[in-house]
Amino acid sequence: MTDAVARSPRERYREQMRAEIKRCAWEQIATAGSSALSLNAIAKQVGMSGPALYRYFAGRDELITELIRDAYRSLADTLRAARDSGADVSGMAYALREWALADPQRYLLVYGTPVPGYHAPDDTTAISNETMTMLIEAFSALPLDERATPFDTHLERHRRWAPDNVPATTLHRALSFWTRIHGVLSLELAGHFTGMEFDPALLFADEVSSLLTE
Amino acid sequence: MTDAVARSPRERYREQMRAEIKRCAWEQIATAGSSALSLNAIAKQVGMSGPALYRYFAGRDELITELIRDAYRSLADTLRAARDSGADVSGMAYALREWALADPQRYLLVYGTPVPGYHAPDDTTAISNETMTMLIEAFSALPLDERATPFDTHLERHRRWAPDNVPATTLHRALSFWTRIHGVLSLELAGHFTGMEFDPALLFADEVSSLLTE
Repeated sequence: MTDAVARSPRERYREQMRAEIKRCAWEQIATAGSSALSLNAIAKQVGMSGPALYRYFAGRDELITELIRDAYRSLADTLRAARDSGADVSGMAYALREWALADPQRYLLVYGTPVPGYHAPDDTTAISNETMTMLIEAFSALPLDERATPFDTHLERHRRWAPDNVPATTLHRALSFWTRIHGVLSLELAGHFTGMEFDPALLFADEVSSLLTE
Repeated sequence: MTDAVARSPRERYREQMRAEIKRCAWEQIATAGSSALSLNAIAKQVGMSGPALYRYFAGRDELITELIRDAYRSLADTLRAARDSGADVSGMAYALREWALADPQRYLLVYGTPVPGYHAPDDTTAISNETMTMLIEAFSALPLDERATPFDTHLERHRRWAPDNVPATTLHRALSFWTRIHGVLSLELAGHFTGMEFDPALLFADEVSSLLTE
């Protein structure tokens, strides 16, 4: 046996059940929405009683937390894989777009309407910071933009959330990357371009270019 | 009596009840989310039986349609009022921002995660086109941007949704206005800037400037 932390059959079964419950939860979110997530309905689908399901997840919030954590984790992993294979800012943008289109529900759970009454735990914030740090690093590799905007000046005094030694103009570009990409993707995924004929991929590409040439 | 289409007391009562039901629906959306909207819970809150409520709204979809229609209508009216009082593109952007912050639930019902299984009727698309037309007109008043991007070239062949005689670069700017403003507002309203200290109003202002100077 090569695995030093071999898990017992009981632990493996527990992992399988948790994965199965999460799969059902994603299906429910797709058909009824995240705020309608019902643990009893999931229990019925996986063939256990409601109380039995609570042995795997303490409640709706823990289940949603797991789904959101998986989504943030998957996004951070996607961007890291792109970066590690040599992608620059554009390459990371296209990786992010592919990730979003591959599973719109996952994207919308993180970036769509917040689930009322639910508060993300600190560790999802940490994963989301990891993503932002990768973007800031990618923009740091680009030639520095010398023109400071009013927001750049403001950021100089409100940048404790960001790594030191990175110019405010670079932080600003990383933030604009995030808001511009999100602007196109979320309108596209929510169907707001329906009937407008154009290819959102090309609008997206132009938004990515705008971040590189300004 | 000056009102040529005076309504009967019965009609006025019906209008009042529908308004009351909509108020309760917005409260429910704020506390439980739009996909958890329950007509029975609303009926209880306004003090009528479930079946009685169906005399005012045929079902969940009709109620959501009314809320979404009201939201689109209110956004179009806000932009028109700004324009009629002399606002340019920036002025319209700030009016839109104020409208969004005044009632985040209303904004998110239109631009957040779509309600699963719900399809917006054609007349909300018409109101949304009205809004886009106002934006296109506002950008038409600005000096023409001569540089054509790849998306501009694509738009030349996919522009049946837009008014004729408006250059593709202008259509593109109106679309980017929409995606950039939405990118900042939706991340702000969903709490993604929490802990980042900066003032999202200034990031928003810089995004608006970016649309005017490119």
